[in-house]
Amino acid sequence: MATINDNYLKLKAGYLFPEIGRRVSAYAADNPDAPIIKLGIGDVTEPLPAACRDAIIEATKEMGDRATFKGYGPEQGYLWLRDKIAQHDFQSRGCDIDASEIFISDGSKCDCGNILDIFGDDNKIAVTDPVYPVYVDTNVMAGHTGDAAADGKYEGLVYLPISADNDFTAQIPTEKVDLIYLCFPNNPTGATATKEHLQAWVEYAKQHGSLILFDAAYEAFITDPDLPHSIYEIEGAKDCAIEFRSFSKNAGFTGTRCALTVVPKNLTGKASDGSDVELWKLWNRRQSTKFNGVSYIVQRGAEAVYSKAGQAQTKELIAFYLENAKIIREQLTAAGIKVYGGTNAPYVWVKTPNGLSSWDFFDKLLLNCNVVGTPGSGFGAAGEGYFRISAFNSRDNVNEAMKRITDKFKA
Amino acid sequence: MATINDNYLKLKAGYLFPEIGRRVSAYAADNPDAPIIKLGIGDVTEPLPAACRDAIIEATKEMGDRATFKGYGPEQGYLWLRDKIAQHDFQSRGCDIDASEIFISDGSKCDCGNILDIFGDDNKIAVTDPVYPVYVDTNVMAGHTGDAAADGKYEGLVYLPISADNDFTAQIPTEKVDLIYLCFPNNPTGATATKEHLQAWVEYAKQHGSLILFDAAYEAFITDPDLPHSIYEIEGAKDCAIEFRSFSKNAGFTGTRCALTVVPKNLTGKASDGSDVELWKLWNRRQSTKFNGVSYIVQRGAEAVYSKAGQAQTKELIAFYLENAKIIREQLTAAGIKVYGGTNAPYVWVKTPNGLSSWDFFDKLLLNCNVVGTPGSGFGAAGEGYFRISAFNSRDNVNEAMKRITDKFKA
Repeated sequence: MATINDNYLKLKAGYLFPEIGRRVSAYAADNPDAPIIKLGIGDVTEPLPAACRDAIIEATKEMGDRATFKGYGPEQGYLWLRDKIAQHDFQSRGCDIDASEIFISDGSKCDCGNILDIFGDDNKIAVTDPVYPVYVDTNVMAGHTGDAAADGKYEGLVYLPISADNDFTAQIPTEKVDLIYLCFPNNPTGATATKEHLQAWVEYAKQHGSLILFDAAYEAFITDPDLPHSIYEIEGAKDCAIEFRSFSKNAGFTGTRCALTVVPKNLTGKASDGSDVELWKLWNRRQSTKFNGVSYIVQRGAEAVYSKAGQAQTKELIAFYLENAKIIREQLTAAGIKVYGGTNAPYVWVKTPNGLSSWDFFDKLLLNCNVVGTPGSGFGAAGEGYFRISAFNSRDNVNEAMKRITDKFKA
Repeated sequence: MATINDNYLKLKAGYLFPEIGRRVSAYAADNPDAPIIKLGIGDVTEPLPAACRDAIIEATKEMGDRATFKGYGPEQGYLWLRDKIAQHDFQSRGCDIDASEIFISDGSKCDCGNILDIFGDDNKIAVTDPVYPVYVDTNVMAGHTGDAAADGKYEGLVYLPISADNDFTAQIPTEKVDLIYLCFPNNPTGATATKEHLQAWVEYAKQHGSLILFDAAYEAFITDPDLPHSIYEIEGAKDCAIEFRSFSKNAGFTGTRCALTVVPKNLTGKASDGSDVELWKLWNRRQSTKFNGVSYIVQRGAEAVYSKAGQAQTKELIAFYLENAKIIREQLTAAGIKVYGGTNAPYVWVKTPNGLSSWDFFDKLLLNCNVVGTPGSGFGAAGEGYFRISAFNSRDNVNEAMKRITDKFKA
């Protein structure tokens, strides 16, 4: 009899966003005319930059001529795209990252999960609390945890609490962990990390032979010139960090799908015989065997992000969403609600007013204001009493949502 | 210290196609003017159908207007695409498959590998020999095997030899296995399966509680009206089979990326407590957590395959490649070389002449004829002495390649 992966049964009911979708759908079914505004899931709303669209259309036309038709591309992505990424996103910031160390993929969510394929099952794994749920759930699925306790924490994982007390940056652990997930600018709290904070992590990792899985999906939202965009801006990070990036949030690719993962060539992990094995080779083998590359036309669209027009258009998109975030921050603050994040990130992290639980605040906003956000407790036990509001929406919707919330809570 | 997945170290050097690429590159570097014709990797060469290109361009334009812009889509794929697949590919052939049982993905190679995520590590796994290497390699990576023996066979897998003696259809095993990979029309041999053969497998699977992983990536090449296109044409298959399909070979999507996997809702596997768990739920959870759906514009392109124009254009593509296969068959046969497959499949499976080994024949063709094929031994020990020639190329290239081979071997 075919057996299943029992670890899936440890997963708590429903990934966070499907549960939000369920509650919103139920409310919308009962109130079909309710003018619901969604500031929940971190999905972009503004058009794909013209430079990207033009490049995709051009590439699609190429597919109509056998002389320029493209079949299977390199599983790692086309070199013309990897070269531009290496130059613009890394070398221009002083990071010694070569195009060959960049793997193009169809999503950071996929890569964050798939990366576990190349690691052993005996690694001690640390996540922040709250945290992007995919890091945790994929470790549960891979059998790296025990069952979940009543507070939702899985046995075997090391949770590093982040809260207002530590500026939403975790304290470096005293115990030894092998894999550490870090995400800056942070999802869900919108917090950022200074070079000093990342330097401390890199030193910890080098001291313990740990590996940092650095999620930089929101780096484009950094406006403060002192903040690092890549972990490779930190000395020594190439020896202890893998970085994930995405075109989803800077160029509006959530529905177009393109991302990348950087695996430096000198990074190694331990085999059970004690030998050092290059992680680049393992990831290359993983991607060659279980992946077939990103659509050619989509890669051409991603390449256009680095054109002069593409740079100007993505910059404008980012500025637009950051202005939304500013409005959210200011309006909620004026209504007497305490907020964090949202200055170098598209997320505003809200302390729920009146001691409401995260889900109670969710229901209250949905029912009274027809505004959808994301309960902080959905990101982990320490997110209880917080709430994430996303800046991804039109200006009119953001203004209207803030008006409804302030009208309700200002009183 | 972060540890690696030791199972990767069991993999033999290089996946088959990178090794071919290496030898071809080395030859081309030494002989820059050699007019090399590639009939090796199963990559399509003819333009993407106009209906698909038009739909992609239209969809890309939609991305330029916030009213029609598409962000994250359903991880399972858009229902308008799943509906058309259910109707055209399954219900029209009498298969009781619902749109909700169809998961859109970016590749069959990905799905064939990823599907192992939802199964236990204690399953007994059977593959044919020769076989598409991804089935084997992904099981090695997942730790479902021991080391490889000298003949390349991995300890712990059950290999079912297929050869001319059994019409390249494996004998139903006498021992009990839990997961069985079947691929028809077959890659690499080009063999097909009758309804009776598949019925015998379904009966075996139902008797033993086994699950069939049915790869139908080449079903569009079936011209014989008596041959089944889907395993769900076989009574009882919905209780014991998952089917993989792709737009790569029927509509030329190898570089555009779209595929699908069918997981019937009533399919179950055993949990370690003996309970039955729905595989649909597990796969849905896997895809929701580790995947973010296929590019909207690509899904629109795939949908166009089912338009009237798309159906006519893909039919023409298939007919074109099948005519290539016919030429390959006839020319090689005339040269005294024994061939199999290639009538309901784009692959011709060649018995190497003069007792040459598969790689020796590869080198001979490359050096003497500047023609690239795929060594049968690369697909498994029982593929030794065979060679795969792909019909995916232009008519001129196929004619020229066959002329060179027949000139060389007719003598």
